[in-house]
Amino acid sequence: MEIIEFIPEREQYAWTFGGVPPVRTVTPGTLMRLWTEDAFSGRLQSASDRPSEKLDMREVNPQTGPFYVEGAEPGDTLALHIVDLEPARDWAASATIPLFGGLTSTDRTVTLQDALPELTWIYQLDRERQTVRFEALRGELQLDLPVAPMLGTVGVAPGAREVRTSLVPDMFGGNMDTPEMRAGATCYLGVNVEGALFSVGDGHYRQGEGESCGTAVEGAMNVTLIVELIKGHAPVWPRIEQDGHYVVVASSRPLEDAWRASQAGMVAWLGELYGLDRLDAYQLLTQISESPLANVVDANYSAVTKVAKRLLPTGDAYNGMHRHLRGQAATV
Amino acid sequence: MEIIEFIPEREQYAWTFGGVPPVRTVTPGTLMRLWTEDAFSGRLQSASDRPSEKLDMREVNPQTGPFYVEGAEPGDTLALHIVDLEPARDWAASATIPLFGGLTSTDRTVTLQDALPELTWIYQLDRERQTVRFEALRGELQLDLPVAPMLGTVGVAPGAREVRTSLVPDMFGGNMDTPEMRAGATCYLGVNVEGALFSVGDGHYRQGEGESCGTAVEGAMNVTLIVELIKGHAPVWPRIEQDGHYVVVASSRPLEDAWRASQAGMVAWLGELYGLDRLDAYQLLTQISESPLANVVDANYSAVTKVAKRLLPTGDAYNGMHRHLRGQAATV
Amino acid sequence: MEIIEFIPEREQYAWTFGGVPPVRTVTPGTLMRLWTEDAFSGRLQSASDRPSEKLDMREVNPQTGPFYVEGAEPGDTLALHIVDLEPARDWAASATIPLFGGLTSTDRTVTLQDALPELTWIYQLDRERQTVRFEALRGELQLDLPVAPMLGTVGVAPGAREVRTSLVPDMFGGNMDTPEMRAGATCYLGVNVEGALFSVGDGHYRQGEGESCGTAVEGAMNVTLIVELIKGHAPVWPRIEQDGHYVVVASSRPLEDAWRASQAGMVAWLGELYGLDRLDAYQLLTQISESPLANVVDANYSAVTKVAKRLLPTGDAYNGMHRHLRGQAATV
Amino acid sequence: MEIIEFIPEREQYAWTFGGVPPVRTVTPGTLMRLWTEDAFSGRLQSASDRPSEKLDMREVNPQTGPFYVEGAEPGDTLALHIVDLEPARDWAASATIPLFGGLTSTDRTVTLQDALPELTWIYQLDRERQTVRFEALRGELQLDLPVAPMLGTVGVAPGAREVRTSLVPDMFGGNMDTPEMRAGATCYLGVNVEGALFSVGDGHYRQGEGESCGTAVEGAMNVTLIVELIKGHAPVWPRIEQDGHYVVVASSRPLEDAWRASQAGMVAWLGELYGLDRLDAYQLLTQISESPLANVVDANYSAVTKVAKRLLPTGDAYNGMHRHLRGQAATV
Repeated sequence: MEIIEFIPEREQYAWTFGGVPPVRTVTPGTLMRLWTEDAFSGRLQSASDRPSEKLDMREVNPQTGPFYVEGAEPGDTLALHIVDLEPARDWAASATIPLFGGLTSTDRTVTLQDALPELTWIYQLDRERQTVRFEALRGELQLDLPVAPMLGTVGVAPGAREVRTSLVPDMFGGNMDTPEMRAGATCYLGVNVEGALFSVGDGHYRQGEGESCGTAVEGAMNVTLIVELIKGHAPVWPRIEQDGHYVVVASSRPLEDAWRASQAGMVAWLGELYGLDRLDAYQLLTQISESPLANVVDANYSAVTKVAKRLLPTGDAYNGMHRHLRGQAATV
Repeated sequence: MEIIEFIPEREQYAWTFGGVPPVRTVTPGTLMRLWTEDAFSGRLQSASDRPSEKLDMREVNPQTGPFYVEGAEPGDTLALHIVDLEPARDWAASATIPLFGGLTSTDRTVTLQDALPELTWIYQLDRERQTVRFEALRGELQLDLPVAPMLGTVGVAPGAREVRTSLVPDMFGGNMDTPEMRAGATCYLGVNVEGALFSVGDGHYRQGEGESCGTAVEGAMNVTLIVELIKGHAPVWPRIEQDGHYVVVASSRPLEDAWRASQAGMVAWLGELYGLDRLDAYQLLTQISESPLANVVDANYSAVTKVAKRLLPTGDAYNGMHRHLRGQAATV
Repeated sequence: MEIIEFIPEREQYAWTFGGVPPVRTVTPGTLMRLWTEDAFSGRLQSASDRPSEKLDMREVNPQTGPFYVEGAEPGDTLALHIVDLEPARDWAASATIPLFGGLTSTDRTVTLQDALPELTWIYQLDRERQTVRFEALRGELQLDLPVAPMLGTVGVAPGAREVRTSLVPDMFGGNMDTPEMRAGATCYLGVNVEGALFSVGDGHYRQGEGESCGTAVEGAMNVTLIVELIKGHAPVWPRIEQDGHYVVVASSRPLEDAWRASQAGMVAWLGELYGLDRLDAYQLLTQISESPLANVVDANYSAVTKVAKRLLPTGDAYNGMHRHLRGQAATV
Repeated sequence: MEIIEFIPEREQYAWTFGGVPPVRTVTPGTLMRLWTEDAFSGRLQSASDRPSEKLDMREVNPQTGPFYVEGAEPGDTLALHIVDLEPARDWAASATIPLFGGLTSTDRTVTLQDALPELTWIYQLDRERQTVRFEALRGELQLDLPVAPMLGTVGVAPGAREVRTSLVPDMFGGNMDTPEMRAGATCYLGVNVEGALFSVGDGHYRQGEGESCGTAVEGAMNVTLIVELIKGHAPVWPRIEQDGHYVVVASSRPLEDAWRASQAGMVAWLGELYGLDRLDAYQLLTQISESPLANVVDANYSAVTKVAKRLLPTGDAYNGMHRHLRGQAATV
């Protein structure tokens, strides 16, 4: 297996999907060892750091990439298999950013109220116990929470000639902020431009579903990926395959529209997998869907539709691509 | 323990929360053995039954109750502990009802498009294997899905002098359609009127999160409950306590508003349980929330916020009411 | 013309649509002279009155009625022609109520932010100049604004056995808060229960479109109405006919759903009036619709679709009912 | 006054805001005579043209521009005064495009229903009477509707390094589709990049509020503009000044969020104009706002907040820029 290692210099970060020249060219089948900076560009380092002073909102959610995938053409499907995610620092940060988050008014849901206080929580990582420590700022409570590393942001260059900020997810993927994007998962993304131009970033050492306050346990991450390419078959919305589940992630506003799109995406996938009629798939999905939210904060909200493979006949998504990649990953 | 058994006659069904005289008076501490008709009032019995011909939409989601709880006053908290849910028939039904459901326009999200075809799926229950059989109507696929009984509808009379249909959930509970409402769960509901006037119904042998097509595997149910009363402490939105989780369910439109309310409800509950400051609770919730949707179909959508007790210090919600009720249930 | 005069005693106010016995029976064709209390039940009288101290939120938006209309049956159409609206006091009030309004989080759109300050503005009426005076509380600006009296709340008892608060509009009408409900307008409401059981209230001496802060220039009103009944033809959503416009008002969440319903209601009305095919009506509406918002604050938001008669062939809605009522009104 | 005339060749059309080199450089104070192609790129010419056959959805809403304004820097305010809009053809077109529009499911509000039939209406312009003729496709009705020319799309390059399709409006303006954008109006847009890079397009010979079916009476347009630049003072959302009104247009989803942003934008503008405290401005706006919708179809919906100058003290927005430009226009 070909191997590419890439640790971006600060001036190499991408802040958008699309609009940036590739930092490397990748042949399908390549293993990549990447490093991603945290969503705050590493600028929140202590509980006394105030986001409004430390952050330049034009430079948050830095991306590692984009990478040009040889042979990828519009209409193709990029498969990114996450082999491993490992915290690259011994601490991570979370914060309430003024007028950003799920339980505050925002620049999209405007009110005349004052912003919530801006606070920064620093989480120390215990690498041995695989926990991060929550420490209350206005009380004594301390809790050790299991580490559950995931990538908040995985995406390709968008279609329709667009260039889009790395903060707002859409059909091209991006900042979906779903805990489903973890080691062992294969993400399928429709290719919109030659070379696909994918990038990754925004590692979370842990995140709840919904990402309520807008920021997870944000930390730099060592990312191991395998890149593959499927000719044709581009899904409308990003799909994820895990050993146990098929997953569709859609991002929109209001939240029911994100959910509807993810559900319709799964109706389509069940149709592809089992030849199910659209209404039969709708019925079956009604009884077996899992619908854990991803984020309700990133301007476009991301909803997840998930079905357990154990409830279904054996499928063969993309000709067994996920199984193949799991096999490849096992050899690393 | 006092025991009440009640199987409603057809003319005793309630179709609303509020506005109906109680069928029985219940002393706190009583065990109740109830029977609930399915959401279709038992009228869909074969795959050839068309909802538009068989259903009277004014008589769907029949409720067993209401029950008058002695001593319950506005501001109190009703605790309903679900001891057991057992399918009362060997079959159940699901259907696409014209202009009802999550992936169709509705009378609330109006378009000029034609309705989807109306179809009825009958599920046979295998009581031994504890499965229900999905049979595709337009193909060959058959699947045995594990039974997972739950109550779609649990609620009390609403406040503000209102009487509300049993189809649309709100602060008073009602048709929340969440799989969290299963045996072993204790549901806490704020009391709005003297006697609380609670009722239950809409048993599901199984349901996915979101209840996509609008109807689960709908079946008559034998319901065993214990009723308890907590003076004061009425939560704004329904809460559920399970052995493993604290759960808040909120119902509104658009879906993000249901989610926001359920999240804020959990911020409040974490504050009550652990003395956590509001912003610390917001931060903690961000990292530990589970957010499985309940329904995106019942006009008001229901969102669930759930936290695992294993991640938290030992709590003592409502002075250990759930533990107490689990103990009581074990003696039945 | 038969005439009924009715000024409710305080204990006669209705707080709901449905669930209240009628205060009078009315024969179709009757002229009614009614008095309505303001939405605050008259409790905000000076700029120093704080809503949270003065208001009992269970007793806001008092209704004058309900009235039982002889012969009205479910499926019929009640026509209420507003002959005259005249301020019944020389002052009116508006206020910011904590967590109520369009530019604040609310109990439906929950955030963790503090409520906006609660303030009360008193407007003095200059009956001769027909103006109300806006006086800034935190500055010097004073403005005389033209009086434009309207009724915020007009509705009938809801269907589906429901009883609904007078605060939240829906298919039965209610608190639509649209400036279209002014003297000279005929409101058509579908009848849901025997006798229709309509009521009116919530007079505004003036209101902007959207009712941003949640309360208009709220004042007691002398209301002159003519009541008529059309057998059958119940519209799904309330309709209003003015000399110059056809109007449909729909109320829902999110706001696009209210707008969609009002648009579809107008597509239907254009079809009835001119035999227009649904798609032709959709096209025509696209080019001639006026879409002034009514309120974005009453939990259900109300959207208006309006078309100018001058752009259309002469129509004959409800067999000329509006013209007939205008004639009747002229004789008063 | 300097004058620039520009009629783009087909290969010069821009399909995005941002991401395209300027076609001309413009000095502030310049008069521009431009030609804009219709939203269908001129491809719908007869009632038998089916959008799905004739349209390339990547090439709709062609823009004339972008133009580089000398001296314009991020944070500045671009003022575009529309001197004149004149239909450039004797016909225009409208159509139902599959899964696009307000009363259909879309790629953003997904359902499993079939799309509405796709139909094309051709409107003949009577230049003398200044009308366009609506002809029903499935009936006999014909109506002559007054011409009311407007520009659907006016915008600058977005911030945050983005490039955005000309179909979806946002803070940078773009496809707002509001009838307020007519001759005599001055549009103020915040500058995000050097040179502002504005473009215009999507002329409508007439449009209702909401643009229900998604396409107005779409026609090529001769556009006469004056370009001016104000240093600093960039508004968050596009503003429009007319002789009679101040207008703010905001675009988002759900529709209430667009409305909230436009309202907050007007609260801010009233504060700038009259030194009004935020809460006083909120109160005043509540009583005087006009809220005619712009579009509920362009993926981001556009809401308008409008206040009549006649209700307010004399203001002096941007130091009288609109008055100045009206004066300049009078000399043309």
